[in-house]
Amino acid sequence: VTNLEQATVEPGSGATVAAEIEALARRARAASREVARLGSAVKVKALDAMADEIEARAERILEANAVDVDAARGKVSSSMLDRLTLNPARIAALARAVREIAAQPDPVGEISEVRVRPNGLRVGRMRIPLGVIAMIYEARPNVTADAAALCFASGNAVILRGGKEAFHSNTAIAEALRAALERTGVTPDAVQLVGTTDRDAIDVLLQQDRYIDLVIPRGGEALIRRVVERSRIPVLQHYKGVCHIFLDESADLDRAREIVHNAKVQRPGVCNAVETLLVHRAAAERLLPSVAARLLEAGVELRGCERTREILGDVVVPATEEDWYAEYLDLILAVRVVDDMDAAIDHIARYGSDHTEAIVTQDHDNAQEFVARVHSSTVVVNASTRFADGGELGLGAEIGISTSKLHAYGPMGARELTTTKFVVFGQGQIRQG
Amino acid sequence: VTNLEQATVEPGSGATVAAEIEALARRARAASREVARLGSAVKVKALDAMADEIEARAERILEANAVDVDAARGKVSSSMLDRLTLNPARIAALARAVREIAAQPDPVGEISEVRVRPNGLRVGRMRIPLGVIAMIYEARPNVTADAAALCFASGNAVILRGGKEAFHSNTAIAEALRAALERTGVTPDAVQLVGTTDRDAIDVLLQQDRYIDLVIPRGGEALIRRVVERSRIPVLQHYKGVCHIFLDESADLDRAREIVHNAKVQRPGVCNAVETLLVHRAAAERLLPSVAARLLEAGVELRGCERTREILGDVVVPATEEDWYAEYLDLILAVRVVDDMDAAIDHIARYGSDHTEAIVTQDHDNAQEFVARVHSSTVVVNASTRFADGGELGLGAEIGISTSKLHAYGPMGARELTTTKFVVFGQGQIRQG
Repeated sequence: VTNLEQATVEPGSGATVAAEIEALARRARAASREVARLGSAVKVKALDAMADEIEARAERILEANAVDVDAARGKVSSSMLDRLTLNPARIAALARAVREIAAQPDPVGEISEVRVRPNGLRVGRMRIPLGVIAMIYEARPNVTADAAALCFASGNAVILRGGKEAFHSNTAIAEALRAALERTGVTPDAVQLVGTTDRDAIDVLLQQDRYIDLVIPRGGEALIRRVVERSRIPVLQHYKGVCHIFLDESADLDRAREIVHNAKVQRPGVCNAVETLLVHRAAAERLLPSVAARLLEAGVELRGCERTREILGDVVVPATEEDWYAEYLDLILAVRVVDDMDAAIDHIARYGSDHTEAIVTQDHDNAQEFVARVHSSTVVVNASTRFADGGELGLGAEIGISTSKLHAYGPMGARELTTTKFVVFGQGQIRQG
Repeated sequence: VTNLEQATVEPGSGATVAAEIEALARRARAASREVARLGSAVKVKALDAMADEIEARAERILEANAVDVDAARGKVSSSMLDRLTLNPARIAALARAVREIAAQPDPVGEISEVRVRPNGLRVGRMRIPLGVIAMIYEARPNVTADAAALCFASGNAVILRGGKEAFHSNTAIAEALRAALERTGVTPDAVQLVGTTDRDAIDVLLQQDRYIDLVIPRGGEALIRRVVERSRIPVLQHYKGVCHIFLDESADLDRAREIVHNAKVQRPGVCNAVETLLVHRAAAERLLPSVAARLLEAGVELRGCERTREILGDVVVPATEEDWYAEYLDLILAVRVVDDMDAAIDHIARYGSDHTEAIVTQDHDNAQEFVARVHSSTVVVNASTRFADGGELGLGAEIGISTSKLHAYGPMGARELTTTKFVVFGQGQIRQG
């Protein structure tokens, strides 16, 4: 057990945590083989039972949550306290989300791209679960139910490690999920919660590459960096969302104004909200006054380059180099006038986070060029960046958004928790050369 | 720069290596943006030029190779010396392989799964290059040309780090490739060879997650483990190939005999050769004598379980627990009689390496069950395990075989060096809830 940050662990406890985590991971691997074989009907039945159990145990879950909320009050920000807090409506929403996952098509077992080789072999790809997925997340207890349901629906076993602030809430929810599995005749080890808030547990978990196939951290950049640095298991990375909108010289004013307003104001605290507006210099005087007026009216602070300030005046705060990198998650927008599409694309490549970028344009060539050249995980033409979301893009529920290109890029649904193996059907073929 | 294995680096040189590698990675990132934009025609032209340059510089490459071979003689095994050695025929094969890669369809730019959302947004996935790929490999200089061509064909920049034994050969080949790029008007930084054999260079390379998207190590298990442990960048893992063939109770004797013989004998030193034979006990007496006779005739040593030895007698060496884990890469085969399909699948799950497993059966249900339950990267019915190969499965050239499930599983061709981004086409849509 390595732990560089805490030196306060009692002697011996490290070894115990390590043994417990390894045993838990081994159980998850065994459970994953069972879950991978379940037919869709059994999985749907188990998921519906999970939703039922969450509803039936609402009171118990709320009591556990009250313990967490009382302990956290005064120690965490009010927004974090809000994310931590459950109430009857939120518990109903939890159960509803699980039922929605149950209603989605099962990606497992699909065979695609079957081709016949010259020697008569039929070769195809069959979709299979990844195996064991470890979720490491922070304060929101709803992730416990969402992630478990999505992993299970795609035929995986899951190991849940939530934030210590939500420990009692997560435990109560996980108990409901496990009871539902047991009631359906499925091994409850398909859903396991790490039963300690010891930070060592994460380090040990990240070394279990024999048993765990994928780690998904959800939370702040520090958590994700820490997981990436320590993990021997592949990690799905979602860093920040520094999303851009580029208004080109042909942009329609009404669309530009409404799209920018929506992308900044409708929900500024989320990763697919816009953070920087880029405007073609040939359109800046035509577009900026109206776009800015709508934003200022909504209480947005504008931080602009020199050319932006020449057009809009002192309502715009001078932007510094840091503003181009900033993920504000707030009613602040950086604004820059650029010479052309090349400059816009260069800006995005330099300061962007590969999350989501949009262009507002009436020009077909420009739309095509922007889509072909900008390699962020979601590229949008004439719509709000806020659509970069699994539900909005039609994936159903979402387990996260990947901003690294390996395995999955962009919003991830149930299918992104699977992979394909090659299947080969022969009639006695042997290889000659 | 961290380096746990060497303490012999001169003061100051670590910092220099680090700066050089970082600069190289940064150049690769810049080049990757240019390469990602190239049309297929330009890429084909550049690849053909690469093949031409390899042929034109054959003498220079052979001279460089002679330096490597002379230095290695007496220090490495004869099989490694053979892999290191180039000759005119092998250089011609190198050029031919590059031309074959040029002839394959370009995966980049394809848009698939376009759906119209209820709000009118058209959402699809566009295939794009990964960006920058680092190849870390051992003695075979042909990997230099193969890997560079495959990465470039799929729109990626590549950083090559070959074994020190092949340093001069790799340098000469890389120079040919870069000259070809330059001649075609493409930045030569799309193909870069790490210009030092300092092992520190690998550690520094594995930290460049800002610039590099994927690391592919090719070589022994020790190399791959070292890369996985130190990398902050996703790694495509190919560990060993402990491949199994299961002969079920219905297996056809002729097929069984020829498939097992082919899978073991045709090329025993490769990862898709069979290492363990599992035989259903109800068919063992019918199948084993003939299957074994054909193998023994070919000089194969058999190591069997007690039941195998009861049937075949003392020509079979008693197998130990280690034999079930062994990747012999030699004319040795472990043989085990199992009670049923469950036992065969359990054996594979316990001792296998997720590479390739085959079943020989005349029973349709058994074939389906084996394919559904065995989650190795390639699962074969009634054919040799030796078909687990990019070329044989129809992928064209192969950059490696992944035995971990993330991103790609099984043989990897050009398409596995790409990913997809979401593309969203709207007409001014904004998000409501």
